[in-house]
Amino acid sequence: MRTIAALVFPGFELLDLFGPMEMFGLLDKEFDLKLVAESMTPVASNQRLKVKPDITTDANIQYDILFVPGGAGVRREVNNKALIEWIVQTSNTAEFTLSVCTGSALLAKSGVLDGHRATTNKAAFSWVVEQGPKVEWIRQARWVEDGPFITSSGVSAGMDMTLGALALMHGIEIAEKVAMWCEYTWHRDKENDPFAKLHGLV
Amino acid sequence: MRTIAALVFPGFELLDLFGPMEMFGLLDKEFDLKLVAESMTPVASNQRLKVKPDITTDANIQYDILFVPGGAGVRREVNNKALIEWIVQTSNTAEFTLSVCTGSALLAKSGVLDGHRATTNKAAFSWVVEQGPKVEWIRQARWVEDGPFITSSGVSAGMDMTLGALALMHGIEIAEKVAMWCEYTWHRDKENDPFAKLHGLV
Repeated sequence: MRTIAALVFPGFELLDLFGPMEMFGLLDKEFDLKLVAESMTPVASNQRLKVKPDITTDANIQYDILFVPGGAGVRREVNNKALIEWIVQTSNTAEFTLSVCTGSALLAKSGVLDGHRATTNKAAFSWVVEQGPKVEWIRQARWVEDGPFITSSGVSAGMDMTLGALALMHGIEIAEKVAMWCEYTWHRDKENDPFAKLHGLV
Repeated sequence: MRTIAALVFPGFELLDLFGPMEMFGLLDKEFDLKLVAESMTPVASNQRLKVKPDITTDANIQYDILFVPGGAGVRREVNNKALIEWIVQTSNTAEFTLSVCTGSALLAKSGVLDGHRATTNKAAFSWVVEQGPKVEWIRQARWVEDGPFITSSGVSAGMDMTLGALALMHGIEIAEKVAMWCEYTWHRDKENDPFAKLHGLV
């Protein structure tokens, strides 16, 4: 079983987090999910609805997977030194580090993505790129896998990425089963990203 | 502005709730979202992660939209008389009543769907049908609109339904904008349901 530290902060994007958590969470014998925050106080999402953290960043725990969602709150958290330090430590000891949407800006700012290929939300592309000039940013991709780093494009792309990650960890048949349980039509081609063109990136 | 009462109960399905809440929540001048539960205690989803309710079912409030997710907890809540009574009252005074997945079993059990067309999760179809024998159940549909009732198929279908509901309330261009913000490929044909066949329903 792999433990997942899913980071939450004020202004995280609901679907960035809960699309992937739905899919990992269905495999309850394979993944143990924890919402990690700086305090145990309920955390308001970008859509105002609140989640209850399971554990704080103070706890000295090693996780198998670090998961970072995006959302408007990222613009503040890139300047949160304690949180960035937690990301560095957690990513360094994790087997995989995943992000959705502008969550990759937090990974980029922490430096862990330096020299790696990664992608992000296409509507916020230029701002995210500024957070990590040493990252090899991919302009057109539904998601990008580069060693331990798996980063996705905006919001819904996180679900396609999660199914890709499940295929990597447990095989394509498990990924297809999870997609069917969720009645989700998986965009399984990582390169298939119509939104890059809609945002003038290609 | 329309207020949405999104019902949560132990064992609700994460994506049933948060896919639609992501999309309604992006239109923060049009929709005011509230998580409604029987108590203010954090509520554990089917994926174990917890949400913090905004308000209880005791509060005597009229909502514009009632939203009911599905999940394993539905099998218990169909026998929760106080909750079923709240659903009847809230649906009777709401402009729209929406459900995702087995959430329609709660609506069916409450009787509000009697004589209406509705759909549900294809993997749980026969059990849901038993909860409301006077409902006209549609075996193959991504979602079904019948007057004030908009019910969707399983999990991810809730996002397609929500975009359909946004088109109904605010026009197709708004629905398309929200889909683009979420980088979501909208299955806009209500009849397009490949999962009915996969589950042997047609």
